[in-house]
Amino acid sequence: MTEARVNRIYAGIDVGGTKTMFCVTGGSGEILLLEQRSTAAHEAPGSFMAWLFAELAQLLAGIQLEVPQLAGIGIGFPGVIGDTEGCLTQAPSLPWPAEDIRPLIRRHYAGRIYLDNDVNLALLGECWKGAAEGKEHVLMITVGTGIGSAMLLNGRLYKGADFAAGEAGYMIVDAGQDRHRLPASGAGFGPLEAVASGSGITALARAWLAEAEARSASRILELAGGGGENVDARHVLQAAAEGDPAALSLMDRPLEHLAAAIASAAVLLNPQLVVLGGGVAVSGEYYMKEIRERAGKYLPFPVNIEQARLGNTAGAVGAAATAAAILW
Amino acid sequence: MTEARVNRIYAGIDVGGTKTMFCVTGGSGEILLLEQRSTAAHEAPGSFMAWLFAELAQLLAGIQLEVPQLAGIGIGFPGVIGDTEGCLTQAPSLPWPAEDIRPLIRRHYAGRIYLDNDVNLALLGECWKGAAEGKEHVLMITVGTGIGSAMLLNGRLYKGADFAAGEAGYMIVDAGQDRHRLPASGAGFGPLEAVASGSGITALARAWLAEAEARSASRILELAGGGGENVDARHVLQAAAEGDPAALSLMDRPLEHLAAAIASAAVLLNPQLVVLGGGVAVSGEYYMKEIRERAGKYLPFPVNIEQARLGNTAGAVGAAATAAAILW
Repeated sequence: MTEARVNRIYAGIDVGGTKTMFCVTGGSGEILLLEQRSTAAHEAPGSFMAWLFAELAQLLAGIQLEVPQLAGIGIGFPGVIGDTEGCLTQAPSLPWPAEDIRPLIRRHYAGRIYLDNDVNLALLGECWKGAAEGKEHVLMITVGTGIGSAMLLNGRLYKGADFAAGEAGYMIVDAGQDRHRLPASGAGFGPLEAVASGSGITALARAWLAEAEARSASRILELAGGGGENVDARHVLQAAAEGDPAALSLMDRPLEHLAAAIASAAVLLNPQLVVLGGGVAVSGEYYMKEIRERAGKYLPFPVNIEQARLGNTAGAVGAAATAAAILW
Repeated sequence: MTEARVNRIYAGIDVGGTKTMFCVTGGSGEILLLEQRSTAAHEAPGSFMAWLFAELAQLLAGIQLEVPQLAGIGIGFPGVIGDTEGCLTQAPSLPWPAEDIRPLIRRHYAGRIYLDNDVNLALLGECWKGAAEGKEHVLMITVGTGIGSAMLLNGRLYKGADFAAGEAGYMIVDAGQDRHRLPASGAGFGPLEAVASGSGITALARAWLAEAEARSASRILELAGGGGENVDARHVLQAAAEGDPAALSLMDRPLEHLAAAIASAAVLLNPQLVVLGGGVAVSGEYYMKEIRERAGKYLPFPVNIEQARLGNTAGAVGAAATAAAILW
């Protein structure tokens, strides 16, 4: 912490498809504000930024601050942001035209801006104030609607040749079958995501329910309030955690595939720690216990696997850390 | 190239289980000597180093040089060398006791020493004078007796938390089956190696030949001189390259598994280039063409896959490069 930073204020924003998290920190790392808003639907990035900065201004006003007083802003997006072009790509939930978004941000803020992928920033959040504090070699995998990953290698974010590193959802852990799970276009879900993400678990559960009406007595359906169309991954996870045999059986493949992917990534990267985040991974001890056991069976050396600690605030906290140049 | 380096001489040595390659370079990167010797069997690292330096001295004498004149020596070993302990571990072909080998080298040479894993140094060789010249993000996978890998990320070797990064032979690409291929101890071959390495291909071919004597008419047997016990991966690769149906069928799984592993590693790392080395990978265009096609089917973005160009000299050349501090 340099002397100069102490009196400065930084903002970190994590833009999600449905929710956007705002974090404001003081220069000593203290969190002054952490608030979530529903993400406004804007087809063009220009109007989206106007909305984003109006929200930020309003939140800052609540703590007697204004946007120009910020010493830096970090913003995370659910897609790939190239450091050179500034275009957001591979962001299904924000399908903007290919356009450099930096000038659009400049209309609202003249200071230091740092843009990155949301999973990269979530990893920095966990490295700053969460499960990976002080670590140098960390693999983070988020298992939510989709599957993403980020890597801190030798103490810095690793982004790859085209800022596309960390596409763990496309890892192949079941070669014979995975070939048939590839989306034709390269968009959509990768083979690992198709099985192991929240969406994958939901799809598996709905297919199973559709198969036989006799299954209507399942605990999964009970948790979903009785309608098969309401069933999603959360109900499967909860039923499995309670020991429901059908749910345990449904979870077998998603767990085994994610464990195999963690093992593959870990033998390649030899990280100090694998952090699992995202709604599925932080659903409870059942999931983490299964993943640890199953990954352990594939691994030639022990690998530490921990649950993310900052939940849905990690991205915004990491965005603030990077705005303050605490972590990159 | 600094001025000071120009008149200096460096040696790079790649110690293999059966062969050891010696490379001597001038400070401008010119190769003055490149010679292979059979590796002497020495159960203790001390007597091994005495042999190694005697060979080196003899080779240097041929070009009117002596060991003390060297400005640096790089040595690659087929195992893991920790930067902090200096012990060689996970080296089945050199099963030395856990002992810091640096003082043993110091008995023979007082200058700058750099020790590393042979695959790491082969990658540096390819980055200096081979297929990956000038690249910053490179994944190298060697497919020989076993499977190894090394990574240049952001222009530097990436070694992981415990110098164990790059254990690609343990990647999981066929989760259901791979669990049964894990060696009990964590020593032996990993699940990917068990199928896709030269040893894996040899084992597949021998099992197939043992299955039915009617197969004695196979081109594979012909190439091996008629005896099933002589068959190895080279015969299968050559027969497949000639279009022999049995060989093509035998190669299906090894190719598919390696392609899937390349895809998994590439989506994670987003390298500029994947370099394939080792006896199996450099066996000819048939192998590379199959790998490129099969990996392409798994990849959401195009990935450049090239054959290593320095063959069995890459490690020694890379060791010399690192001794000269040209690449790390």
